[in-house]
Amino acid sequence: MPPDTALPFSVHHPLGTTASQIAVINKPMDLVCGTTLPFHSLVFETYGILNKARNNAVLICHALSGDHHAAGIDKDGKVGWWDHYIGPDKAIDTNKYFVICPNNIGSCCGSTGPTATDPETGKPYGKNFPSIQVRDWVESQKYLMDHLKIDCWAAVIGGSLGGMQAMCWSLAYPEKLQHAVVIAAAMKLSAQNIAFNEIARRAIQSDAEFKDGHYLDYQTSPKQGLALARMIGHLTYLSDDALGRKFGRLVNSDGLGTAEKELGEFEVANYLNYQGDKFSQQFDANSYILITKMLDHFDLAQDYNNDPTEAFSQAKCQFLVISFSSDWRFSPLCSRQITDSLIGAGKAVSYIRIESDQGHDAFLLPDTRYQNALGIYLSRAASELEANSL
Amino acid sequence: MPPDTALPFSVHHPLGTTASQIAVINKPMDLVCGTTLPFHSLVFETYGILNKARNNAVLICHALSGDHHAAGIDKDGKVGWWDHYIGPDKAIDTNKYFVICPNNIGSCCGSTGPTATDPETGKPYGKNFPSIQVRDWVESQKYLMDHLKIDCWAAVIGGSLGGMQAMCWSLAYPEKLQHAVVIAAAMKLSAQNIAFNEIARRAIQSDAEFKDGHYLDYQTSPKQGLALARMIGHLTYLSDDALGRKFGRLVNSDGLGTAEKELGEFEVANYLNYQGDKFSQQFDANSYILITKMLDHFDLAQDYNNDPTEAFSQAKCQFLVISFSSDWRFSPLCSRQITDSLIGAGKAVSYIRIESDQGHDAFLLPDTRYQNALGIYLSRAASELEANSL
Repeated sequence: MPPDTALPFSVHHPLGTTASQIAVINKPMDLVCGTTLPFHSLVFETYGILNKARNNAVLICHALSGDHHAAGIDKDGKVGWWDHYIGPDKAIDTNKYFVICPNNIGSCCGSTGPTATDPETGKPYGKNFPSIQVRDWVESQKYLMDHLKIDCWAAVIGGSLGGMQAMCWSLAYPEKLQHAVVIAAAMKLSAQNIAFNEIARRAIQSDAEFKDGHYLDYQTSPKQGLALARMIGHLTYLSDDALGRKFGRLVNSDGLGTAEKELGEFEVANYLNYQGDKFSQQFDANSYILITKMLDHFDLAQDYNNDPTEAFSQAKCQFLVISFSSDWRFSPLCSRQITDSLIGAGKAVSYIRIESDQGHDAFLLPDTRYQNALGIYLSRAASELEANSL
Repeated sequence: MPPDTALPFSVHHPLGTTASQIAVINKPMDLVCGTTLPFHSLVFETYGILNKARNNAVLICHALSGDHHAAGIDKDGKVGWWDHYIGPDKAIDTNKYFVICPNNIGSCCGSTGPTATDPETGKPYGKNFPSIQVRDWVESQKYLMDHLKIDCWAAVIGGSLGGMQAMCWSLAYPEKLQHAVVIAAAMKLSAQNIAFNEIARRAIQSDAEFKDGHYLDYQTSPKQGLALARMIGHLTYLSDDALGRKFGRLVNSDGLGTAEKELGEFEVANYLNYQGDKFSQQFDANSYILITKMLDHFDLAQDYNNDPTEAFSQAKCQFLVISFSSDWRFSPLCSRQITDSLIGAGKAVSYIRIESDQGHDAFLLPDTRYQNALGIYLSRAASELEANSL
C-alpha cells in the first residue's frame, strides 16, 4: 500500500535522512497461538523529540504491507509511506510529538518474521513461523514501549490493520494510551474481505515455486503468486471511480512487444501487473499469508460476548474515528459501527467521514479535509498534554 | 455462473429430458479480428414448438461460462442454468415461445472453440483460436437463425454478456428481432471490471501447466490458475451482504485434515475453493481467456462516435432492461445508462431495478418480482405476436 515515492538524495526534507534502529527484546513472548518466541527484534524509526515528561510519544501502527519507514527520506532516497501526515507542522506534528513507527513481527522488513533465522534449526523460519494475532503485535509494541521507557502513549494511530491495533491497545492496556486514532478500519472482516484474502493466499500457495512454504531453502520465491495476491489486494483498495478517472478504458500498446501486449493491453492492466511484479520483488510470501490470516481472525468483541459495547467499556482513552466514502473494503459503515459501540460504552469519540473517491487507499493519500481533521484533533490533544505537564 | 443443480433422473420435469442438436455451418465466417473461420459448429438446445408463422422463436444468449443447456434436465441429470425462467408457464413460456439456446463459438461446451481441431494443423486450436468479439457471436447466431429458417426473433434475451449480445443484435440486424431483453448488462466494462478479468487471466497464464496456452498438446491443463480465475469471478458476482448472510465468519473445521484446514478455514473460503476446483475440471482455460477479453473489448458505441444514443438510433425493436440493486459488477447505473440512451434515441423501453442482495448472480436466481417483470413483458409480446399472426 505505500505509495511509490522515491526522491533523489539532494531533495531537502525537514526530517533529514531517517535511520532505523533495532530493539532486541531478550525476553520470551507468549503468543496467542500458544507458542513462545524466545526473543525477537523490532526495527523502528522515530521522528521528533521525546519531551522530559516522556509523555509526547505517538505510536504509528502500519497495515498489511507497511514497514517502519513511515516518514522522511531513508538512506536509499525512499520517502516514508505516511510522509504526507508525519513531520513538522503536519497533521502528526513532530514539533509536538515524538513519533515511533515499528515494523511488526511476522512481517519481513527487518523485525523478526518468517525470513529470520529460527534459533532451533539455524534455518529461516519460513512457513514454520508461528501464527500471529493483532494482540501479539500490541504485546510486542508494549515491549518496545518499555524498552524506550515510555509509560503512556500520547496517541496510538493507525489505518486499516493499523486501526485494529489502535483499538486493541485501548482494550489490552487501557491505562497506556491517551488517544486512539482509528482510520479506515473495522472491528472484524466481512465474509467478502476474508474471501479476497483467501484467493490471495491460494494464488501464493498454488505457485509451483512456493514449495510448501519452504521456498527460501531452495533460493526461490513464489513471485507470480505473490504478484497476483498483490494485484487482488491493490485492486480492492481502489474505488471503481478512481480507476475510471485514472485509466478509463485506455488501451496502451506503445512500445510493447506482442507477448507484452498479450499480458496487459489496457492501461489499468499494465498498471496492476506492474504493481504486482514490483511488490513480489520486495515482500515475503509467508509474511503475506501470515498477516492476511491475522486480518481474517481479528474480532474485537470475540472475548466480550461478541458485544462491541462491552468490549469498549474496557477502554479509558479518547477516540478519533475516520472513514472514507468510497472505501469498500472497510466501508464507512464499519467506522459507524465502531463509533456507535464507543458511544454505547460512554466513551469520548469524534467521528468524521471524508468524501473521497480514492477507496481504501485514501488513508495514505493527501487530502486537505482529512489532514485538517487529524491535525486539529492531535493539536488539541497536544495542548491538553502540555497543560497537564505544567 | 450456472447454479449447482443436478436432480436424479426420476424427477419429473415438464420439458422432459432435453437433447442437444448440432448445426454445422459450412460457410466461411469473417471475424472482426480479420481471420476467417472456414466452417464452424454450433451446439444448441430448443424448448417449445416453432409455430407455423415461424415468428415465435426466442434466442437465449449465455454469459461468460454458460452453455446451450439453459432449461430442462439433460441426459446426465443436470438442470439447465436458466431453468427457473424457461419452461411451460414460466417467464419465458415454452407454451408460447420456441426457445433456442446455442453454445457460442470460442466457448468449450460443444461449439467450435479452442478445444476443437484446427483443420490446418489437425491439432486443437488451443491458444491459436482467433480472438472473438460479441459481434462475432451475433453473426454466428445469425447463421443458426438462417439454418433454422427463422426470419425474425420474437425476442433476443440475455443476462450479463448475454445482454451485450441482445444489444448488439438490435444494432447489427435491426429488422431481425421484435424485442431485446437486456439483463444485468453494461454498454462497456469499467476499468475495475477489466482489472478483475486481467487478474483472472494472469492467474491462468502464470500456472506452470498453462504451457503458453498449448497445454492440450501436453495432456494437461492449468487447473490451479483456472480455479483462481473462477474464484475471483465468482466472488465479484456475489454481494458482500449475500456472502455475509450465507457464511458470515463461520469457521468450519469439521472433518478436515490439517492440510485442508490450512487451505480454507472459514466456510466462505471452503465454498470458494470448492467452486473454483469444480469449475477448473469443466471449463477450458483458453476459452476463459478468450471470452473475458471479449467482455473487456465490448464497447457498444465505439463505432458510433462513442455516442450510445447515436448507436441505439439504429435499433428498431422494443427493449426491456433489468438490473439488480446489489450488482456491483454491472450495477443499476449501467442499466440506467442503457435506458437513458434508448430514451434519447426515441426507442420503446421498459426498465426495472429489482431489489436483491444476490449481486450480479441475481440474474440466474429465482426472484418473484424479476419473474413477474420478465413474464408479463413477454406475455404481452406474445399476445401482440398472436394478434399480428391473425
